[in-house]
This record gives sequence, structure tokens and C-alpha cells, in this order.
Amino acid sequence: MKFELIAQDKKTGARAGVLHTDHGSIETPIFMPVGTVGTVKGVFKEQLDKDVQAQIILGNTYHLYLRPGTEIIEKAGGLHRFNNWSKPILTDSGGFQVFSLAESRKLSEEGALFQSHIDGSKHLFTPENVMDIQRSIGADIIMAFDECTPYPATYEYAKKSMERTHRWLQRCMDRFHNTEAKYGYEQSLFPIVQGSVFKDLRKQSAEVISSHEAKGYAIGGLSVGEPEETMYEMTDIVCNILPQDKPRYLMGVGTPWNILENISLGIDMFDCVMPTRNGRNGMLFTSEGIINIRNKKWEDVFDTIDMALGENHIVNQYSRAYVRHLFVAREMLGMQIASLQNLSFYLYLVKEARKHIIEGSYSDWKNYMIVKTKERL
Amino acid sequence: MKFELIAQDKKTGARAGVLHTDHGSIETPIFMPVGTVGTVKGVFKEQLDKDVQAQIILGNTYHLYLRPGTEIIEKAGGLHRFNNWSKPILTDSGGFQVFSLAESRKLSEEGALFQSHIDGSKHLFTPENVMDIQRSIGADIIMAFDECTPYPATYEYAKKSMERTHRWLQRCMDRFHNTEAKYGYEQSLFPIVQGSVFKDLRKQSAEVISSHEAKGYAIGGLSVGEPEETMYEMTDIVCNILPQDKPRYLMGVGTPWNILENISLGIDMFDCVMPTRNGRNGMLFTSEGIINIRNKKWEDVFDTIDMALGENHIVNQYSRAYVRHLFVAREMLGMQIASLQNLSFYLYLVKEARKHIIEGSYSDWKNYMIVKTKERL
Repeated sequence: MKFELIAQDKKTGARAGVLHTDHGSIETPIFMPVGTVGTVKGVFKEQLDKDVQAQIILGNTYHLYLRPGTEIIEKAGGLHRFNNWSKPILTDSGGFQVFSLAESRKLSEEGALFQSHIDGSKHLFTPENVMDIQRSIGADIIMAFDECTPYPATYEYAKKSMERTHRWLQRCMDRFHNTEAKYGYEQSLFPIVQGSVFKDLRKQSAEVISSHEAKGYAIGGLSVGEPEETMYEMTDIVCNILPQDKPRYLMGVGTPWNILENISLGIDMFDCVMPTRNGRNGMLFTSEGIINIRNKKWEDVFDTIDMALGENHIVNQYSRAYVRHLFVAREMLGMQIASLQNLSFYLYLVKEARKHIIEGSYSDWKNYMIVKTKERL
Repeated sequence: MKFELIAQDKKTGARAGVLHTDHGSIETPIFMPVGTVGTVKGVFKEQLDKDVQAQIILGNTYHLYLRPGTEIIEKAGGLHRFNNWSKPILTDSGGFQVFSLAESRKLSEEGALFQSHIDGSKHLFTPENVMDIQRSIGADIIMAFDECTPYPATYEYAKKSMERTHRWLQRCMDRFHNTEAKYGYEQSLFPIVQGSVFKDLRKQSAEVISSHEAKGYAIGGLSVGEPEETMYEMTDIVCNILPQDKPRYLMGVGTPWNILENISLGIDMFDCVMPTRNGRNGMLFTSEGIINIRNKKWEDVFDTIDMALGENHIVNQYSRAYVRHLFVAREMLGMQIASLQNLSFYLYLVKEARKHIIEGSYSDWKNYMIVKTKERL
């Protein structure tokens, strides 16, 4: 895997690049749709490719490990073969999901003991076996096993948690380097910066993480409830320390305006369930602002949904009134259309961002789009 | 609207034809996917067109009348504009749905008083206003308001019910001829034969219905719980009486083998919720038989779903193991793929039937396919 920096914005920290993987190239900044169990909810692979124009998708190690399990994925020949997605895939380490289980997990230096949300069965995730599982799944980019420090956390807890994440990283690195990819293409391991909302911890974590040679670096533990300004502050501190020549991935972020702001700070990669989850609830992100499609005001508005995506885009084959009707009548097609709209818009947004970074007009465009994307229509 | 008879099978009553409408031609025999509230559940219009190759879809007057209501549909410029389906549409009369409400409806000579399943509000359907509603919806083929006689029914009830259906038909015809299409294209009214499972009533009803000049004729009140042999017997009696030069529509039927048998008896048009409803429950109809995709046996079967649909068909981009995984993990994409498989298979089946009728090999092919389609894989 190789990262090529194409352009850097003069007024902000925004960067445009290309990340080359064995499953093809990714133009950054990029948004990665989340395919929890190997599938982006409600979206056909063909649509993900042609309509959304996704360049890389994300899978969740925790979910895939429990279902269908690594045995089936290995039999299939890896996740790319199993879900038939031939472009790049990234898997998280399961850390975030395991720590979300709160009551049903127990943390130790060895790893995290947890109970399956499906059948209550007990499992242990360690830095070592999470590397093995991600080898079996076979994503192009795999993540270190970390503790996603809960928010809020005391300074003391955040520090201890961060230090454990750093120790676990070494174990991940060792296991990663002592094992090989199973399916004949390269896998790259990204370490994760933690440190909660404490500037000195974030700085320290960024330094420790950067001291490990890696093909890319991630920032975790943000967008977990802290104020937006705090998130930007932490990203800024970390981006000033992470190597310039490697991609930076801000995990689990976020709203359209969060993405635009974080691009300014030097982030190259994003993922979030928001476009699909909120879409399934009738919230549409568009280039003109946010639409609550269940609202009665759309009942007889026969306009298309978002012309910025092009008049031939699949979502523009349906009117706002029709999509509202689908939601009110609880038709699953409504959720499908909304998911496609939101993912397509997120991909449109990062593509436009990239264009403006290259053209040198990112700052003005960003300020304009942040206002636009926050508007409630 | 004009029906053109292309070929008739020598050994059976099977026919191949073309039904010309203002929204294009329909090659018969045909299966019509059901789009209850104007949308075929879980299927994009583009997929219905290219993957399923649907030539006509069905909408339900009862559902569309309640939601979004005729006012919105009229504002949109009719259902074709509202759901953006530019090929032919057929609407049922609401009779079947209203009579399914059992407890919450009251029948009189005037019509049927019923309570909405959505909000309990009271509504009256009469032969006249059902014609008006179907004028507002604007389907190419609209249906007479009838009583779908429940099964089982006494001879006495079935006779009274049938006679009322006949009286209502005259009122439908009168209203239909005294009103005009609203959107500049032709609408055709199909009367419906009733008579439960009583041969003399079916005969009588077929004669009365045939005495009305119409562009096509329907058979209702079958596939409501009676034995399959009885259904075939009734269809046979009726098809021997209905005009040869008009299309015949058997309402709400059925399984793949039901369709093949009824084509033999002279039926040209079918509709049924089975492919989508059973699909959403994990039952796949294929050219090789029936697959219960939740079954553990598919867990590691990486074969495509149904090669008869062509290796590039959208469903064949997913393996049986993957679709099983989607169902087990309760991912909506599983239901979407299964709906596409079943509808595509039903359309494949009637297309193959038509080809064999034209080639003169329908009978043998049908006997072979009936065994095939019933098989449990």
C-alpha cells in the first residue's frame, strides 16, 4: 500500500491524495460506507459501486467474527469473495463494539472478555487474536485492537486506558509482523491514537503511535459525546504530530459539517453509520440541507431529492412526495432510497472537497457548504 | 387496448398473445408483480425494469385510496407519474382487501362500509366511487368492484354474493362509461367472475360476465383456501365460456406450478404477493426448486442462486451462503435479494412458457417444470 499526496490546501491543513491498494486506488479525502456484517445495510453492491461511487467500504470485526464467523469467511476465500466487493475493504478491530457492550464485558491486560449480543456466549478478544481474525477476514486495511476510552472519562482513567492501548499496539504489531496475509494480497495495519479529550494525552498518544512504522494512522475515541469544538481541537493536535506522508483516518465521524471541518485539519479518511442509520429513520442529507422526509410539508412536493447528484441519479427517479409516502406507509423501499441518497451525498461531498483542495478553493467552499449542510429544509 | 392472439397450444388451452396498451405492450402469459401502495416491496423501479423484466405491475386501490389518497395522486398526475413507472399498471378494485377486513366492514346492496386498518376511520366503497377512485389513480387496467366470496361458503351464500357482484358490475360499467380517463390515455375495465367452488355458479357467472362488452375478463375468488384441483376445475369451466379473443386474468394466483397449470387452461394474466412475501421470509423460488435460504445447509455453499436467470443477473452476484448470512443476521438486503430472485424467476417462468407455447412444446415442458418447481432443495 502506498499513499501519494497530490495537493495541500494553502489556507487550511486539507490534503488531497491517492491511496493505492491491491484492490485498487482510493482518492482521498474519502468517506467509507459502513458494512457492519459485510453488507452496507439495504444497498446492493452494484448500487454501492455505480450510484454511491464508494471506493472502499468498512466491515466490523466484532460482527463478522460472531456471524458468519471466520471459518465461513475463510472457506469463501475472504470477505471480498464472500460479499463479492472487489474494491478495498477496511475492518475495525472490534474494540469499539466490545466496549459498547458495557455490562457484558470485562477488561484486563490480556484483552477483553465479552458476551455475544446474539446468544450470550463468552469470547475473549486479545491484540493477538484480533490480528488473526482480521487476517482471516482479509481486509486491505486492518485496525489495531485498542480501548475506545468512554466519554466522559477522568484524566487518570483516560491515561491508563491510553497506556494500555499503546501496550496492546505493540502486541498487535508483533503478531501482525509474525503472520502473513491469507489471500495473496497485502494487508496494512493502522495504529490508533487515543487520549480522550485531554490535550497532553492526545499529544503523547500521537507521538507514541507515530513512532511505529505503519502505512496509515487512525484517531479513535472521538465523536463519542464530546462537544464538536473539542473534537476539532483534538484532531488538530494529533494531525500536527502524525507523519505528513501517511493517510489519517478519523474513526466514526460524522455529520457532513464534521467531515468538512476535519478535512481542514488534515484528515483523509472517514467512516460513520450516520448516513445509513439516519436515512432509515427518514433523515436525508442533501446538498441543500437536511430533509425530514416524514414531514407533512413534503406530501405534495414532486421535486427530485437532490439535483447535485445529477438528474439521472437513482434517487432522482423518485420525488420527495413519493419517498415521504413510502416512509409513511412503512415501505422498505423508502429506507433503501434514503440510504442511497445519504451515502451518495457523503461521497459527493468528499469528491467535491477533493476538487476544491486541488483547485485551491477549499476554504471558501467549505465555509459555504457547512452552512448549507446544516440547514433544515 | 387491443389483445392479439399469437399462438395457441394444440395439446392444452395455453395461449400466447400481446396486449397493447397506451403504456406499451405486454407479452402474455404474464405475471404482474404486486405494488400494494404503488411500490413493489423492496424493489427499485430500475430493477423491476431491467432485472425482473416486469411488463406490468399491480397497485391496490384500497391501500392507495387510504395512503397517499387520491388527492395526492391526482396532484402528481396519476400513479404512473407518482411512482414513476412508465409501463402499464393494473389496479384491483379494493373488493378483496375490504372483504379481508372481516370484522371491520359491513356489506349492503349499496356497497361496503369499512374501517381503515391505519386509523380506524370509516369509509364506504360503492361500485361508483371505486370507479371514480380508479379513474383518479389512472391505471391502464381497472377492475370491477366485486365481492370476493369467502371460502368456504354455502351454496346459498355463494349464489347471493355472485348475484350482487353481477348487479354491482352493471353499476361499475355505467359509471365507467359515463366518466372519462383523467390523464389522456385509455383505461379498460375488466369484469370479474365469481361463484365460489360451485360449477353451475361459475358457469352462470362466466356467462353473465361475458355478456358485458369488455377489453378483458378476470376470475376472482380462487386461491382462497380451496384445494388446487378445485381451483383448476373452476378455471377450466370459466375459460371455456369467456371470449377467446380477450385476455383472461386469474386474480391472486399463485405458486409457480399453479401458474403453469392455469396457463394450460387458458389464463393469460396472473398476480400474487407470494414471490415478494415468501421471499421476505427466506423462501426462494428457483428454476431448480425451492430453497429455504435460512437452512444451515446453505451456510458454506458458495454457488450462485439461480443460473437460469443468467450469470450476470443481479441475484447471481451473491452466493447462497452470503444470502443465508444476510437472513440470519436480519439484514434487509437479504429480503431485497430474495424478492428480486422470486420476481425474476416468475417472469422467467412465464416468458419460457410463452416461448414453449409458440414452439408447440408447452405440454411436455410444463409437466417437467411442475415437478422441478415443487422440489425442495
